[in-house]
Amino acid sequence: MIVGRLALVGTGLIGGSFALALKQAGAVREVVGVGRNPARLTVARELGLIDRVVDWAGAGQADCILLALPVGETETVLAQLAPHLKPGAVVTDAGSTKAGVVAAARAALGARFADFVPGHPIAGSEQSGPGAARADLYRGKRVVLTPDADTRAEAVATVRALWEAAGAQVETLDAALHDRIFAAVSHLPHLAAYALVDELARRADGGLFFRYAASGFRDFTRIAGSSPDMWRDIALANREALLAEIDAYLAALRSLREAVDSRDGAALHAIFSRARKAREDWFKTQDV
Amino acid sequence: MIVGRLALVGTGLIGGSFALALKQAGAVREVVGVGRNPARLTVARELGLIDRVVDWAGAGQADCILLALPVGETETVLAQLAPHLKPGAVVTDAGSTKAGVVAAARAALGARFADFVPGHPIAGSEQSGPGAARADLYRGKRVVLTPDADTRAEAVATVRALWEAAGAQVETLDAALHDRIFAAVSHLPHLAAYALVDELARRADGGLFFRYAASGFRDFTRIAGSSPDMWRDIALANREALLAEIDAYLAALRSLREAVDSRDGAALHAIFSRARKAREDWFKTQDV
Repeated sequence: MIVGRLALVGTGLIGGSFALALKQAGAVREVVGVGRNPARLTVARELGLIDRVVDWAGAGQADCILLALPVGETETVLAQLAPHLKPGAVVTDAGSTKAGVVAAARAALGARFADFVPGHPIAGSEQSGPGAARADLYRGKRVVLTPDADTRAEAVATVRALWEAAGAQVETLDAALHDRIFAAVSHLPHLAAYALVDELARRADGGLFFRYAASGFRDFTRIAGSSPDMWRDIALANREALLAEIDAYLAALRSLREAVDSRDGAALHAIFSRARKAREDWFKTQDV
Repeated sequence: MIVGRLALVGTGLIGGSFALALKQAGAVREVVGVGRNPARLTVARELGLIDRVVDWAGAGQADCILLALPVGETETVLAQLAPHLKPGAVVTDAGSTKAGVVAAARAALGARFADFVPGHPIAGSEQSGPGAARADLYRGKRVVLTPDADTRAEAVATVRALWEAAGAQVETLDAALHDRIFAAVSHLPHLAAYALVDELARRADGGLFFRYAASGFRDFTRIAGSSPDMWRDIALANREALLAEIDAYLAALRSLREAVDSRDGAALHAIFSRARKAREDWFKTQDV
């Protein structure tokens, strides 16, 4: 056992899967859940993601508290939790952006900021909610922790041990670098997929187009099935890095447009070949 | 049996799978192959995609000739075939663009243009080559035929019967409308995926980004693994429709950028929600 009691703030896919994995691994004795949505907590209990529902005071008595929520809610939730945190309790999160979360934690937790370990499991699905949770979601996946200079080493060690018990490989990164990387490889692709689908959906004759969309479209747009709440918060929280990535992507698309417009087959072939090669090289190194 | 002898010009995934399906269905007695690449034809024969290799004169003696090649090669290939076409032979293709193919066929086939049935199977894979061919590739998939006013009805009926024997559902569309639709739901997504991967690959520190790319990136960029030859030809052949789609997409991305820049969470949420709903509605209606 790594911690006795785990508290979840957010009992959807990410939080629920963490709890299931840790229970299965024997890494926690009890999982409690807290939140504003009683119906959802009831579902989480019925699904066995949590053992019981608690209030903020009860959550503060846990040994580890995981926030698995849209990142825009971080500061409010931590402010509610802060007065109740027992000595030695470790707080962590699973948000897809980190610099904003670190700033929110610093503002809300005051002296207890040292017990906050910012984290980001690189796992997920366009599925969401308690019903999508599963014990093997994190097996073989990466989790990035972005501890601050002020973060207690023991707190980092506890959170690392929990993720490893859930089957994940844990790495650490600087929070700002994390945000820059994920703006490029995750946040921008999500926005690009949403934009493409929405552009078609807004057409008066959109149905005609969707009728002929096939497997390439299906995979390209899978991430456009993701939670709008979560992705609004990510886009706002990682604004600067995301704007830079959107600009780089707009420039790349304009170059492609120019090659099409000028019938420059050699330029198109060069772009397509480089991209295919880069993706093949990447794919060989990945277990995704 | 629908036709006695089928000739393939192009024995990769698309042509090879067509041959395998028709053989399995008993819809053809013999499949012959022709092309400039002897090594590839030998592989196709060893894999059982074709029974024997023929020259252009031999291909012209087939009852049906399928072109399954990058669309830019259509006119050259048809010009080589034209003098050898036996009376009643039907010619068809599997290209992803249709107006340019129709123009090429009209130019190359002269009086025999009436025997040319433009076709587009909505099936494929980022895999290519003879080794990727499989008899069930077209099962349950759509095939769009875009016959011209001058196309013989009997030729259309033969090609329709062959695709149906291969397990596909056959529809007809106007060639220009076909190209407009596929520019939006297929050609643009391919270019968008290629552009995203290439933009990362060209960075000096691109490896750092690829290291953290996960399943969302994998699916979004799957189509960037497609054949550069094929997609260069498609981009050039469908230039006008594709430029219009790129422009619409650039405008959609600039709107998203503006919402991020101005911290307009409501606008972002509206775009993401509409896109998710549209994709869910689409996905329910599709067998993809």
